[in-house]
Amino acid sequence: MSILVVGSVALDSVTTPFGEVKDVLGGSAIYASYAASFYSPVNLVGVVGKDFPEQYLALLKERKISLDGLQIEEGKTFRWSGYYEYDMNQAQSLCTELNVFSTFHPHIPEQYRSSQFVFLANIDPELQIEVLKQVKKPLLSILDTMNYWIHSKRQSLLKVISMVDLVLLNDNEARQLCNTPNLVKAAKTVLSYGPKIVIIKKGEHGSSMFTNSTVFSAPAYPLEMIYDPTGAGDAFAGGLIGHLAVSGDLSDNNIRRAVIAGSVMASFDVEDFSLNRLIRLTQEELYARYRAYRMLIHFDDQE
Amino acid sequence: MSILVVGSVALDSVTTPFGEVKDVLGGSAIYASYAASFYSPVNLVGVVGKDFPEQYLALLKERKISLDGLQIEEGKTFRWSGYYEYDMNQAQSLCTELNVFSTFHPHIPEQYRSSQFVFLANIDPELQIEVLKQVKKPLLSILDTMNYWIHSKRQSLLKVISMVDLVLLNDNEARQLCNTPNLVKAAKTVLSYGPKIVIIKKGEHGSSMFTNSTVFSAPAYPLEMIYDPTGAGDAFAGGLIGHLAVSGDLSDNNIRRAVIAGSVMASFDVEDFSLNRLIRLTQEELYARYRAYRMLIHFDDQE
Repeated sequence: MSILVVGSVALDSVTTPFGEVKDVLGGSAIYASYAASFYSPVNLVGVVGKDFPEQYLALLKERKISLDGLQIEEGKTFRWSGYYEYDMNQAQSLCTELNVFSTFHPHIPEQYRSSQFVFLANIDPELQIEVLKQVKKPLLSILDTMNYWIHSKRQSLLKVISMVDLVLLNDNEARQLCNTPNLVKAAKTVLSYGPKIVIIKKGEHGSSMFTNSTVFSAPAYPLEMIYDPTGAGDAFAGGLIGHLAVSGDLSDNNIRRAVIAGSVMASFDVEDFSLNRLIRLTQEELYARYRAYRMLIHFDDQE
Repeated sequence: MSILVVGSVALDSVTTPFGEVKDVLGGSAIYASYAASFYSPVNLVGVVGKDFPEQYLALLKERKISLDGLQIEEGKTFRWSGYYEYDMNQAQSLCTELNVFSTFHPHIPEQYRSSQFVFLANIDPELQIEVLKQVKKPLLSILDTMNYWIHSKRQSLLKVISMVDLVLLNDNEARQLCNTPNLVKAAKTVLSYGPKIVIIKKGEHGSSMFTNSTVFSAPAYPLEMIYDPTGAGDAFAGGLIGHLAVSGDLSDNNIRRAVIAGSVMASFDVEDFSLNRLIRLTQEELYARYRAYRMLIHFDDQE
């Protein structure tokens, strides 16, 4: 089934203890779209400047990511630069240049409006609301956000949270949004705002999915080397929505599988800078790691 | 099958954001023995002073914990005091009074020497070696330790690690012992020292078990309230060794089940101060949470 992804498209400059890159392809919508495209075609909505490199557009088109919704505006593309310390848990932002992103309003092309799976990647919650007003009610809407919006646009954020089916947050965002150190309490609070499902992403500690009646905890795939965590949360979201869209099955059990698909995708993302590892990724590698992941959490409880 | 537990017996004074207790029952051997006693009788070896309360001895005897190996010496019992900050991840030690523990040498009673499951709870690695010299080769020997011994008795610690089958470490200890922030690398390094299995405990983030050919990751049971994390690692060890001893099955799959039994036991331990929650714990509650835990990690991958 069709997937719509709306979010940021960026040129990132990132330094980690293992190297650095400058003005490379990034942004929440890019990581999510690229990851989802392993499962299903994707309709992308975002904005770039005239300086956005042709080769990046070509890269996205090769993956059957439709760019009809990518607005190309006069001016420079959104840029983010940051670095990670040795423990890699938290990005330190150095500079955020909004550029064409500062006046962005998502325009959803007519042919995208009945997309059945919608991912509102991290952007201003007011823009996320604009997206929901333009689309027909999808089978599943997923929302991501960041600490900046929790501070600065709390009311709009709470409103859009109440409008979607599934909310993705990382652990710190969940604590901050709900004003509690305890993630179980935080998840319950978010559920009380309206969504049916909350998934809390905990980086190297995996993720937990909460509904009003169930909890599912999935560890992260264990890796010996993490080169660059940028985009891991969005790659997770892309794997998740891709898995759900290809099957169209929203049962609790299939969402659990989708969480694993997301975890596996995120585990590849962090193995190189930018989208480099996902660009090299083959379907065979994806399946092989999914099987390895299954063994990671498998136990047989039949006595 | 029979279990031998050797470690500290203490009177703890603990403060957490949710309360405080003074001179309550604690110590690595106590938490582990009490937890294991839900599965199998336990032989305990440790030392206390003449001031050790009778009622604590009675409590242990009620659980079929044999105290023939508990040395009662002139002087005061080992005392530890510490506190936890709001995030509860790391105990802050305030005071450690060794008292009778400072001259302790474990004497393993003749009838304990063929115990088939041996848990060397956290004590001086030189004393752990003394224990191994006194017992017949068990079916499974498990070792725990702490950061203090990694600093101060590294060579003895590496020696005893090479002598046991299974090593338990928390995440910080593993990083410190192996001088790497990466837990997968740390686990491989520990395996290279000789043990067949390494389990890294990550507190609220669960645990991971590594062998030379497999990895198993188990999340922590999600709790809304954690009152006191003291003893959680030892309760985990007790649940683990108890589950293995009652079945006598050391297959990879059964060790995975034992990790879950340990996780479940630890989840009860933290629900109250000292051993209070374990003292109230019924077999029915234990089974119910084991089943709930199974659902926490369950997914059906048959298409």
